[in-house]
Amino acid sequence: MEITRRTVLTGAAVLGAAAAIGAPNPANASTRSAAATGQAANPKAVERWGMHEIVLNGPDKGNPYVDVTVAAVYEGAGQTITVPGFYDGDGTFRVRFSPPQSGQWRWRTDSNLPALRQAGKVDVIEPASGNHGPVQVVPGGYHFVYADGSPYRQIGTTSYSWALQSDEKCELTLNTLSTSPFNKIRMLVFPNVPAEATDPFVRTGTGPRDWDPTRIDPAYFRRYESRIERLLALGIQADVVLFQPYDTARGYSDMTRTDDERYVKYVAARFGAYRNVWWSMANEYDGIKTKTVDDWDHLFQVLQAADPHNRLRSVHNKNIYYDARKPWITHASIQSAGAALDGLRAHFHRQFALKPVIFDEVAYEGNISERWGQLSGEQMTHRFWNTFVGGTYCGHGETLNPEQKPSISWLGQGGTLNGTSAPRLAFLKQIMEDGPAPGINALQPDWDYDIAGVDSQYYLRYFGESAPTQWEAILPSGSGLSYQVDIIDTWNMTITSAGVYNMAKVPRGAQDPARPTVALPGTQWIAVRFTRV
Amino acid sequence: MEITRRTVLTGAAVLGAAAAIGAPNPANASTRSAAATGQAANPKAVERWGMHEIVLNGPDKGNPYVDVTVAAVYEGAGQTITVPGFYDGDGTFRVRFSPPQSGQWRWRTDSNLPALRQAGKVDVIEPASGNHGPVQVVPGGYHFVYADGSPYRQIGTTSYSWALQSDEKCELTLNTLSTSPFNKIRMLVFPNVPAEATDPFVRTGTGPRDWDPTRIDPAYFRRYESRIERLLALGIQADVVLFQPYDTARGYSDMTRTDDERYVKYVAARFGAYRNVWWSMANEYDGIKTKTVDDWDHLFQVLQAADPHNRLRSVHNKNIYYDARKPWITHASIQSAGAALDGLRAHFHRQFALKPVIFDEVAYEGNISERWGQLSGEQMTHRFWNTFVGGTYCGHGETLNPEQKPSISWLGQGGTLNGTSAPRLAFLKQIMEDGPAPGINALQPDWDYDIAGVDSQYYLRYFGESAPTQWEAILPSGSGLSYQVDIIDTWNMTITSAGVYNMAKVPRGAQDPARPTVALPGTQWIAVRFTRV
Repeated sequence: MEITRRTVLTGAAVLGAAAAIGAPNPANASTRSAAATGQAANPKAVERWGMHEIVLNGPDKGNPYVDVTVAAVYEGAGQTITVPGFYDGDGTFRVRFSPPQSGQWRWRTDSNLPALRQAGKVDVIEPASGNHGPVQVVPGGYHFVYADGSPYRQIGTTSYSWALQSDEKCELTLNTLSTSPFNKIRMLVFPNVPAEATDPFVRTGTGPRDWDPTRIDPAYFRRYESRIERLLALGIQADVVLFQPYDTARGYSDMTRTDDERYVKYVAARFGAYRNVWWSMANEYDGIKTKTVDDWDHLFQVLQAADPHNRLRSVHNKNIYYDARKPWITHASIQSAGAALDGLRAHFHRQFALKPVIFDEVAYEGNISERWGQLSGEQMTHRFWNTFVGGTYCGHGETLNPEQKPSISWLGQGGTLNGTSAPRLAFLKQIMEDGPAPGINALQPDWDYDIAGVDSQYYLRYFGESAPTQWEAILPSGSGLSYQVDIIDTWNMTITSAGVYNMAKVPRGAQDPARPTVALPGTQWIAVRFTRV
Repeated sequence: MEITRRTVLTGAAVLGAAAAIGAPNPANASTRSAAATGQAANPKAVERWGMHEIVLNGPDKGNPYVDVTVAAVYEGAGQTITVPGFYDGDGTFRVRFSPPQSGQWRWRTDSNLPALRQAGKVDVIEPASGNHGPVQVVPGGYHFVYADGSPYRQIGTTSYSWALQSDEKCELTLNTLSTSPFNKIRMLVFPNVPAEATDPFVRTGTGPRDWDPTRIDPAYFRRYESRIERLLALGIQADVVLFQPYDTARGYSDMTRTDDERYVKYVAARFGAYRNVWWSMANEYDGIKTKTVDDWDHLFQVLQAADPHNRLRSVHNKNIYYDARKPWITHASIQSAGAALDGLRAHFHRQFALKPVIFDEVAYEGNISERWGQLSGEQMTHRFWNTFVGGTYCGHGETLNPEQKPSISWLGQGGTLNGTSAPRLAFLKQIMEDGPAPGINALQPDWDYDIAGVDSQYYLRYFGESAPTQWEAILPSGSGLSYQVDIIDTWNMTITSAGVYNMAKVPRGAQDPARPTVALPGTQWIAVRFTRV
């Protein structure tokens, strides 16, 4: 899968480059050097929503992370887009651009280093099969869609420090993801559990706080982005978490505002051109005691200004919901275990955000002593179904291991999944994909239908923990229409036809006069689906 | 009950006034003329949180509503407060001030009419018994408290156009309120149903739109405020609704921005000094198609600037929640029937607002054909209990009458209450008053206790529609402590002692090892209360 084509320039000489990243290996940091030694004199075509990279070689002196500014202006398809670049070590600077439209684009770099001032052009071709573009929010709506219009049904997971583990461990994690239902993974830039990569900034001594926030280690970020590339090849969104409250020993999330700004701009320039990147400003932002809401607001504005690709932006809470209506937030990212216990509790979060809602943390499937990590597979799956019928989305995580330690679990380090929810989430994902695009909503949530769907087209009733033997099937609409009715066992992953129901008008709804009820198996975790025929 | 003392001045001559409004009669408009003819040469004392009124007589020419500016600067208790005045017709201007502190206050008026420039002083004495000051939000919290620290437990009702009915009908409504549990009533300034008072602005013809937004009828507002005074005497908060979407024939809520600003400033100056006034910017604000959210934001800022008394401010929605985190909002005023069906659904609205939440409309007890007006008494009461255990507040209304017409119901015009919920809401109010101040909260809402209260001190579990015969009483805290346990039948209004429970530590909570369960009657609408002894 072609991800990137690069244009490499050294000094004033255009070397050009079109190094395709075929199957990038997260085990090495060769990506940069491969690109830096690319041969093509003129850049070849780049896919729409792929990545064009300009490589600029300048002097390796002073502290380019702080001292050098570089950016490119791209012009094409009637648009002019300014794209900030970044320093990648050894005198190499890069500018990465993911073209939003096909056609020829001309570019010109500017810098406070004359050697980095260059110009060129690139042909942007139609995307190959499988490249649907970045995920976006349906305008004014509560669901997601790829840039090419394909629906995106979020089934997320979290593995905080997976990308910072050894190459072998990362291969194991990627292998697990490749057969999982998950199409988004929340992942920290700064580690929260033991990891192989621990030093985004240059060390100045042996103590935990002996590091220099004005000097980055490019290899740390190069390694992290190689994991983003691998996720892209798997069609998985990388929900990149910029700050977190758990590394109080190192204190990477406790930098000054100036250092934070430089870091945010760096990751925006470095990672933002990957079309599978989402930004999560922080995990449990309100657990970071060195920053105020004003600080977060400011950093969001810095990020927004530094990210010409306008990737999705949110922030994850501990106790205090961030105001998801703020203009720089594209969707709400909520931590709440209780909200996912009822579809309408989930739904009301949409009323607040007026944007899509993802319950990125609803506690985890596991066996640890902490209450947030001991859900059964049934409970984890139940929360996904509740958020689904609330017109929202959910996130998985697993803290299940023989030692009952969250740090070495999937949640902390990745590896393998050993729980029972993932296959059920794959089943749910198929139910979503078989349903209406871009998604479903709670229908008439102020009244007592407790039904999700899309009016006339599709209805879904989920019974959760209750185990009824029948249901008086009154839909909020649909009279005069016929529906294929299916009994879905969300845990045993079976779909059983109940035949076609012909709905007639009843007070405030529709019901089949011949079959006013639907027979149910009397077990838990059952849903009933009405699909218009 | 002494509400007001007035200082009356004509031209440059200080007549002074100290007309106490004893038992004001809403049947006449004599309040103003009584004050204007007050005799005291020097103003007597005014209670703290009472009202001092300066009456200024100037020329009755031109259009003073538009042309004349008048305001007083009050200085006392180390504070300087600028209080806008208003025109009351017949050449009379008034400035109304409710002093926040006792002691001597000096005042000086300024105006673009030289005749209205005066000065004086007033002694502010301690409040009489029953005067607790205005209701305020507990700082940083989710509950309300009077200015003197007394708890205020909101049990609201709505009667949109009661204040605009005949004097006889208003007496009937006030008589009903006097024996009801309600301590807040939502009431429109502009009528939404047939009323005796229909013309806040001067008529210019016989068509519905034949009125002049630049010319008010002071008598309309004088009549309305006489109802506010009567509510004050009953200890009831007047939730004054400034705009509403239902009078599309007259279109009072469809004025221009300039006319809206003048109207908002007028009611702020005229009504704001009554300590029982709350501002609701609109009913179903998003139903008013001639205004945008920007317009509402603007009008809130106009109101805030025009109201030195800083009365509580909110706005009521139809479908789209207004963002209650905006700084001019003091509490959320929510319309949602579905949110009041579950305590935690209600609770999450606090997470959104970070302020107190009142579900001012959750559908109404009644017998009309519209779905929003056909709750049973049980359903109305149930919604109050749900919002209570969610740490929030609720609003009542009644659409119950032989003709099944909302317009002539309590909701539309006031009168008598014929439903069955009000006595149960009085019972609930007593439960609230017997509980901790300023209020209770959902405890550990992310976990599965489903218990409200205040840690260690007080716990309340409400079973709603379910009818269990016993409950495994595990509290989220309280081990080592003893509690009086009561079984509360919220519908039959009985409290039955279950004796004292001695709680010991169990995993993640507290339970009485001798009595791990509480026996319940197996009927609906039961609550269990644990009060620390």
